[in-house]
Amino acid sequence: MARELIVSIDAMGGDAGPGIVISALLRVIQRHPTVRFILSGDEVVLNELLAKHSKLRERVCVRHASERVAMEDKPSHVLRRGQNTSMWKAIECVKNKEAEVAVSAGNTGALMALAMFQLRTIENISRPAIASIWPTLRGQSVVLDCGANVSATAEQLVEFAIMGEAFAHVILGLEKPTVGLLNVGTEDQKGNDGVKEAANILKNSNLPLSYHGFIEGNDIAEGTVDVVVTDGFTGNIALKTAEGTAKLVGQFLKRSLTRSLSGRIGALIASGALAALRRRLDPRAANGGIFLGLGGVVVKSHGGTDAIGFAAAVDMAITMARADINSRISADRARLRLPEETAAS
Amino acid sequence: MARELIVSIDAMGGDAGPGIVISALLRVIQRHPTVRFILSGDEVVLNELLAKHSKLRERVCVRHASERVAMEDKPSHVLRRGQNTSMWKAIECVKNKEAEVAVSAGNTGALMALAMFQLRTIENISRPAIASIWPTLRGQSVVLDCGANVSATAEQLVEFAIMGEAFAHVILGLEKPTVGLLNVGTEDQKGNDGVKEAANILKNSNLPLSYHGFIEGNDIAEGTVDVVVTDGFTGNIALKTAEGTAKLVGQFLKRSLTRSLSGRIGALIASGALAALRRRLDPRAANGGIFLGLGGVVVKSHGGTDAIGFAAAVDMAITMARADINSRISADRARLRLPEETAAS
Repeated sequence: MARELIVSIDAMGGDAGPGIVISALLRVIQRHPTVRFILSGDEVVLNELLAKHSKLRERVCVRHASERVAMEDKPSHVLRRGQNTSMWKAIECVKNKEAEVAVSAGNTGALMALAMFQLRTIENISRPAIASIWPTLRGQSVVLDCGANVSATAEQLVEFAIMGEAFAHVILGLEKPTVGLLNVGTEDQKGNDGVKEAANILKNSNLPLSYHGFIEGNDIAEGTVDVVVTDGFTGNIALKTAEGTAKLVGQFLKRSLTRSLSGRIGALIASGALAALRRRLDPRAANGGIFLGLGGVVVKSHGGTDAIGFAAAVDMAITMARADINSRISADRARLRLPEETAAS
Repeated sequence: MARELIVSIDAMGGDAGPGIVISALLRVIQRHPTVRFILSGDEVVLNELLAKHSKLRERVCVRHASERVAMEDKPSHVLRRGQNTSMWKAIECVKNKEAEVAVSAGNTGALMALAMFQLRTIENISRPAIASIWPTLRGQSVVLDCGANVSATAEQLVEFAIMGEAFAHVILGLEKPTVGLLNVGTEDQKGNDGVKEAANILKNSNLPLSYHGFIEGNDIAEGTVDVVVTDGFTGNIALKTAEGTAKLVGQFLKRSLTRSLSGRIGALIASGALAALRRRLDPRAANGGIFLGLGGVVVKSHGGTDAIGFAAAVDMAITMARADINSRISADRARLRLPEETAAS
């Protein structure tokens, strides 16, 4: 039998500190009783927190790190000076094959930079991407890239399609996920050169993925496809625009309901239903911007998350490691012949 | 005294046909009793519709057009063969200075192509942009470009800033609107070369506009700035993503409320408040993708709109014409020295 799965945790990464990490792991071990953890962080603080939880304590190994990456630290600074941070050590555990996956709620830019530096990318994948899970009218979809890069070539968009498809298969459990390219229209002649060329490659490739075609912004929430592919500039702005819009509609609802007595009474009676809506829109449930394409699995939990959110990120990391998502991506990428590769051979 | 304002209307443009155009104008003349209209379209149909409304009839001149642009017509086809369409003739009235502004609910791509062909752009403005009004937590903001172009240079982003600022002043009535550049982060080093260079120009220009800096996607709904500037690819996707998200949250609310008896009773009691919310999110209230930068004012109403939405688009066209928005844009653009213009002088 294979050794038990080991998850490397940056215990000092989030805004709320290591307390929520411990609470999260207490939840995780109920669902995954055989998983073990390496916690990187201040050993005094961590040992004190663990002292009260003997069942968790015996599944954990603490790796001391004297420093932590702050939310405002520049990635370039962390790359040069960050060797003693909990984030660096957490990724190092994956690099050294002591752990299968790393989870951190720290500074996204620094985490991506350290992960790229230590783990590089999967062979033949030129750039990593950040994937997000979005609620849709039909269920859930994956959108990538949500901000690992500020632009993407046609070839990189195709690589994102491969990575997103593998993720949708492994995490959303879809047998044959459909893939769409985000564009300003659905007709062939619409869009910039990058998306048009990517569409051409996807249409004519021998990849084992179900390419749907171009989709528009409203198709994301409609759930028209399972995997939405776009460059990191557009994807990041679309993601944050959607978050802002959901918050705006929630505020408008609140203002409408509190403005009149009938609204307040109605809201009181319907409070169960409104709470269900809040849960549905709760970003903690689908917490975790997932880094795809790295030479090791790294999951980024929201910096401002709580124990429930961090536990969801750890759960996802465990599922990705067990499914060996990187081998699937690597195999699919090897099947793809890009135009210039064909020309060169 | 100056002659009365004349508005040119593409009466055959929308999905619903000329009936809603007439209903819309009946509303408009109540608010603007001195405005006159040129209606381009099928004269038999239009005269029949107008016969019942003598008060409107006397403010209208019908210009016969034997054809109409269909929603699926390609812009290139309309440019070559569209001389007899109601859309062509409606814009021609502005070109020939018979009317100050044109309004159409037709095919956006064809309308932009015909407007560009007949009206060109304002002097020194290289590309037109489509502006949209967004509801925010603080009120309303303007976002542009929402899809006139599939990319933008730094100089074009600066031109969009000038045009958006003029629009916010004229339509939202803001004395000194703030302007932000949409990006993946707010720090100077974030983003692609285009937004970084545009930020540089805006920071160091002598333009009479209040430049805020970079903003992120969630800042749009927050109302962090009055004018959000972005390229047409990102802006179009952000706009449609927001529309899709608002619809999704509305659907989730409906599902939550109808799932339980208490939810249904609460919703019944709070129905007035929920109706207020629906009105608030109603796209018809802020209807009209506004074309800015053309050598004449053209307002695009949603294709699927009703009389209320079309009337709102006509109201906006009237306000823009009365404020002479193009002269303001032209004057601001003349004050701007771009780096290469400075180098050349």
